[in-house]
Amino acid sequence: MNTHPAAAAIQVSDIGSFHIGGQMTTLAGMAPRSRVSTAQGAVHPVDPNGEVIVGQMYVQYVRLAAARSPHPLLLWHGGGMSGVNWETTPDGRPGWQMFFLRAGFDVYVSDAVERGRASWAPYPDVYPEAPYFRTAREAWEETFRFGPPGSWHAETASRRPHDRLRFDVAKMETFMNQFVPRWSTNDALTQHAYDALIGRVPDSIVLTHSQGGNFGLRAALHAPERVKAVISLEPSGAPDPATSDPRVLRGLPHLFVWGDYLDRHPFWIESVPKVRRWHEALAAAGVDTQWIDLPARGIAGNSHALMADDNSDDIAGLVLEWMRGHRLIG
Amino acid sequence: MNTHPAAAAIQVSDIGSFHIGGQMTTLAGMAPRSRVSTAQGAVHPVDPNGEVIVGQMYVQYVRLAAARSPHPLLLWHGGGMSGVNWETTPDGRPGWQMFFLRAGFDVYVSDAVERGRASWAPYPDVYPEAPYFRTAREAWEETFRFGPPGSWHAETASRRPHDRLRFDVAKMETFMNQFVPRWSTNDALTQHAYDALIGRVPDSIVLTHSQGGNFGLRAALHAPERVKAVISLEPSGAPDPATSDPRVLRGLPHLFVWGDYLDRHPFWIESVPKVRRWHEALAAAGVDTQWIDLPARGIAGNSHALMADDNSDDIAGLVLEWMRGHRLIG
Repeated sequence: MNTHPAAAAIQVSDIGSFHIGGQMTTLAGMAPRSRVSTAQGAVHPVDPNGEVIVGQMYVQYVRLAAARSPHPLLLWHGGGMSGVNWETTPDGRPGWQMFFLRAGFDVYVSDAVERGRASWAPYPDVYPEAPYFRTAREAWEETFRFGPPGSWHAETASRRPHDRLRFDVAKMETFMNQFVPRWSTNDALTQHAYDALIGRVPDSIVLTHSQGGNFGLRAALHAPERVKAVISLEPSGAPDPATSDPRVLRGLPHLFVWGDYLDRHPFWIESVPKVRRWHEALAAAGVDTQWIDLPARGIAGNSHALMADDNSDDIAGLVLEWMRGHRLIG
Repeated sequence: MNTHPAAAAIQVSDIGSFHIGGQMTTLAGMAPRSRVSTAQGAVHPVDPNGEVIVGQMYVQYVRLAAARSPHPLLLWHGGGMSGVNWETTPDGRPGWQMFFLRAGFDVYVSDAVERGRASWAPYPDVYPEAPYFRTAREAWEETFRFGPPGSWHAETASRRPHDRLRFDVAKMETFMNQFVPRWSTNDALTQHAYDALIGRVPDSIVLTHSQGGNFGLRAALHAPERVKAVISLEPSGAPDPATSDPRVLRGLPHLFVWGDYLDRHPFWIESVPKVRRWHEALAAAGVDTQWIDLPARGIAGNSHALMADDNSDDIAGLVLEWMRGHRLIG
């Protein structure tokens, strides 16, 4: 009746979700309040003190009736974002979740601790400080590299994106809908939850973006026997070879993928060399690691939002090719 | 290779998402800060002032290759919760999202404004007050009716659930993972976003839980020609017949479903009659409306978490039977 003539429907055996990594915590000493729970509903007293769960991560999975890879693909988002990053692109095309389902992977999309459906905990009662809300200017000029410093303007017509930019800036507001608050104090809780996820879903491929990168690289260090590959899209950080030994990662292939304009943004000018150092330490230790610089391959114009740029399917295709080369899918 | 021998795989044409209802807002007058974005990453200054999106809702859809109903099913969660409510139950069974996909509906699961993947806005800068975090005691004794007042205890062995309770209290902590903060000041933003969703997805069936109920009943009043049915699981509020005219709803069938122990909890003792008044006004106005009291049908022991209780499939089955009776699915 309501037929969607999609190029490739997928046979799905199960869609579901779970939380992982949280624990019961007791809130105490908070003042009583009262509230209305629904329009014209009853006013009732609220005691904010009591047990809540803190530190949980949310994971949603889509499992295929007949996956073509034995390796579940875990998609880990970046800072100030949620798993929504991997869904429909801001310009309305299927995202990487759908791409890799169609390619034959069971796909697990998570919302890290404090983000999206993972929920968050009260501050300053549990988290020590207030969160950060990403502004349009910060996204445009700093993290996502849509335009050079000074090029953001609230008025659409006045915005100046980078030449050849592959992110559709007419969809900036649509993209901004995906931003969620972040804290800078939850790294340990978040790593704990990601490590627990690796413990629950064996033989997985970890594919990360941005802040997720550091968590993915460390999760692999923590349980190298359980991870089959680590793919990092523009990680904003990496382990330090001075304190982490990459030799345990022999046999665990790594891929790094980088877009354009990295040399024009202070945050990236400072961040990339730290990641490069880890890549070089991996290589020196005999780990199979590859560093893809897209502009060096003739692919210009990619922002930090590689999975949302207009060639997102091409980038996913490069990643899939690398996976095939490493026999991660038949 | 990785075959899941599920009873019924589904043919999915598309999984995706969008946000709706938000608008650009400018934050001003907030003090500069600085932060580290990733472990061992760069410290950089943060200007919290600038444009952000406020008031957006998140909607995730799963569309079937060949739906058996022309009516998309919209699942709207309750207060302090997100769309996760409709996914895997706390005791690990497929939830209502999967049930109604298998039944043949395209299913749209939303996270209301301020919840989950919808993100939220800073307070007191945008929202006037701090949010409420649901405690275990409040969930157990008040809203979800797992046990009578006074029966919650942090120690598992000391908890006393209601006799015959159908919610698996061994999974209380698993359920608590789903709780997200809520505000009591965002009803207008939330209704606006739900109304926009009705405007975007025509001919839909709205199926709500708890706080979602009032939003669903009002969305139907606001656009009766676009909604095909309203199904309310234990709505915590409803329009007031003194100020809303139910006659516009003729031809739009309504269903209300209620669990057990409602007469033992002050919040519900106060809330149910307000909803009953709307049901009766609907009936008096000639609207096709049905009020299902599960205990009166011999189905005892349901908590407020009807979609998470151990007979959740049976309740979904009752709803599906009602849909079939109203020719909403072939």
